[in-house]
Amino acid sequence: MAERIAGPEIERLIQLLARLPGLGPRSARRAALHLIRKREELLGPLAEAMRVAKEKIVTCSVCGNVDTTDPCCICADTRRDGGVIVVVETVGDLWALERAGVLSAQYHVLGGALSPLDGIGPDDLNIGKLVGRVAEGGVREVILAVNATVDGQTTAHYITELLSPFHVKCTRLAHGVPVGGELDYLDEGTLAAALRSRTDL
Amino acid sequence: MAERIAGPEIERLIQLLARLPGLGPRSARRAALHLIRKREELLGPLAEAMRVAKEKIVTCSVCGNVDTTDPCCICADTRRDGGVIVVVETVGDLWALERAGVLSAQYHVLGGALSPLDGIGPDDLNIGKLVGRVAEGGVREVILAVNATVDGQTTAHYITELLSPFHVKCTRLAHGVPVGGELDYLDEGTLAAALRSRTDL
Repeated sequence: MAERIAGPEIERLIQLLARLPGLGPRSARRAALHLIRKREELLGPLAEAMRVAKEKIVTCSVCGNVDTTDPCCICADTRRDGGVIVVVETVGDLWALERAGVLSAQYHVLGGALSPLDGIGPDDLNIGKLVGRVAEGGVREVILAVNATVDGQTTAHYITELLSPFHVKCTRLAHGVPVGGELDYLDEGTLAAALRSRTDL
Repeated sequence: MAERIAGPEIERLIQLLARLPGLGPRSARRAALHLIRKREELLGPLAEAMRVAKEKIVTCSVCGNVDTTDPCCICADTRRDGGVIVVVETVGDLWALERAGVLSAQYHVLGGALSPLDGIGPDDLNIGKLVGRVAEGGVREVILAVNATVDGQTTAHYITELLSPFHVKCTRLAHGVPVGGELDYLDEGTLAAALRSRTDL
């Protein structure tokens, strides 16, 4: 803001809100005003929820997920199939797969993907613990649900190589046309993959 | 989320974030993950900024602005021209006008506009205090910077009527083509107003 038109506490709130993904300076101001208007119903509870989250959230020592318990509620859930580990790059990917609700497996969060250009090597990722979990036995399949990017695929191949001594089945997600997607808007790589992996009707 | 995949503290954080304007359920999850990743640099400070804001923010008893002091820092600023009061509907409007940085006047925040359809009458708005400020004397001009909507214009006319005994000049913002706007995309009402109020080159 050009001039000081509100106390430093309000400007600090706006500045911090503007650092959230999806909020720019303008929408951060709007969000701050919304919070100030709803002081009792929203600002207070949100401040408290953030304080609690800050205090309680830990990284799961088994899988790398974030939760308020360690091990996280997924690792602790005995109804899940411990024989299948889904390897994801980020916690957001884990949440997305859980929303799909197809699997009831365990997860392993790498914390990123191998990226020689960005200087991210195997030691920067949560790979050692994955090998440890597989080495312990009881794992039938490792689903490498990494992004379909160069870095993601490099990571998948690296991990497959690393796990080869344990004779565990490594799989990756299918490539193809997104459900609801129109062919006209798809890139050639996806179309070629979808054609190659065509299935019987 | 379909199943419980994280502690209730994380889900509560996501639910509260989703109530901010500009954030839906999807971007609230992304924002929550961003906050969790930046626990020390962002989550903690934001929680604290919100707690402080919740505690300190008050409505200015003079003009209806929100600030951490009463009177607010605009009302307390003696370098501003106390002879001009800019009447706005919301604090957001006040901030927007201040960003334009054209005036160094006092403000008065109504807290909305008259709206018979929504049951908002004069008693629901911060109008009484405005009359009081004008009645005290020293005010030369009241700029009715309300929205160019039916409700806004109704409010402007109502206030002009109310202030007529005090012989104070009441003005409104000019209608016209937004700076940088293209005529082709403008509505007929704006174009007609811009034509009527044309100025010499």
